[in-house]
Amino acid sequence: METLQKVLNKHLNLEVEEWLCFKGCLKEEVCKATTILVKENTIASKIYYIKSGLLRTFYFQEGKEITTYFACDHQFITPYASFIRQTPSLERLETIEESQLYSLSYSHLNNLYAQYPTFEKLGKILAEMNYLCLLNRSLSMQTKSAKEKYLDFMQSYDPKIIQRAPQYQIASFLGMAPESLSRIRKEIIIS
Amino acid sequence: METLQKVLNKHLNLEVEEWLCFKGCLKEEVCKATTILVKENTIASKIYYIKSGLLRTFYFQEGKEITTYFACDHQFITPYASFIRQTPSLERLETIEESQLYSLSYSHLNNLYAQYPTFEKLGKILAEMNYLCLLNRSLSMQTKSAKEKYLDFMQSYDPKIIQRAPQYQIASFLGMAPESLSRIRKEIIIS
Repeated sequence: METLQKVLNKHLNLEVEEWLCFKGCLKEEVCKATTILVKENTIASKIYYIKSGLLRTFYFQEGKEITTYFACDHQFITPYASFIRQTPSLERLETIEESQLYSLSYSHLNNLYAQYPTFEKLGKILAEMNYLCLLNRSLSMQTKSAKEKYLDFMQSYDPKIIQRAPQYQIASFLGMAPESLSRIRKEIIIS
Repeated sequence: METLQKVLNKHLNLEVEEWLCFKGCLKEEVCKATTILVKENTIASKIYYIKSGLLRTFYFQEGKEITTYFACDHQFITPYASFIRQTPSLERLETIEESQLYSLSYSHLNNLYAQYPTFEKLGKILAEMNYLCLLNRSLSMQTKSAKEKYLDFMQSYDPKIIQRAPQYQIASFLGMAPESLSRIRKEIIIS
């Protein structure tokens, strides 16, 4: 819980009372690998802070899984559009490996916003982060070569994601075939 | 200025002091059609509230203009990624027709955040709005037919944008050739 307090205080400078109230809203959850936390067509009612572990959001397109977001230790994740609008999710949220999580429900978060406006800043940071991730991914899809995309990914994402997420999931996140990703990785190791 | 106060108070419930401080940070600007407010490769230092008018953001791809965002009366606009990160913009911000604007600088907005945390909620709403617009546009590009995209656009966007923005700008926003848009509009009128 201390690390989460540090993560928040990097941006929020919470009073003791605010932190205690936030902490009181969290629920600890331990999930095995490939646990579905939000199923497509259901509403994402919680956002998750990852104490340790690895998760992703993805959707199905013509039977194929398209990964849209990865998150690991000390990051937040939820099918974001569903969570902020409280509408059915197009995406599934799943653990990639066993994960220790703190969940915060939509209603608790909104109570926090109402009680302590300083938490609006957390909401703003989460929204900006999701915006920039989506923008980078969509610009990268449109303008970059497969190799450039992978090099960008290596620079921008936590090494844990690169090392532990299955190749086919990273490939779909980067909009390329698993074979192309495998070829690019070999090229990079040789050069 | 009254309408802006109403727009903000829909979400923020500002105290008189907070509103007066916000108002004091605004600068009124009247711009002719096709005025460039932010040029690509420069930093977006202001966000604009549109009192009346029509604006867009766009970038150049192989000499072609690709429109990424439209906004008109009572909406906010800026090259958003550049504004929140204070990094050079990939996009240009331009008026489509003569526009009356209130601008708010990045530093003024950050002073407001620091002085009155309730303004963080405005930041959160702007970020969520930009996220959802980008998500809808990118999902629509990937999954919808040209006709579906145009029908969605008609449902989601202000009629003023549909009536007054040039066809080639709407077509590029929807990821289609101007000729396809023209054909779809004819089909819709006939059916």
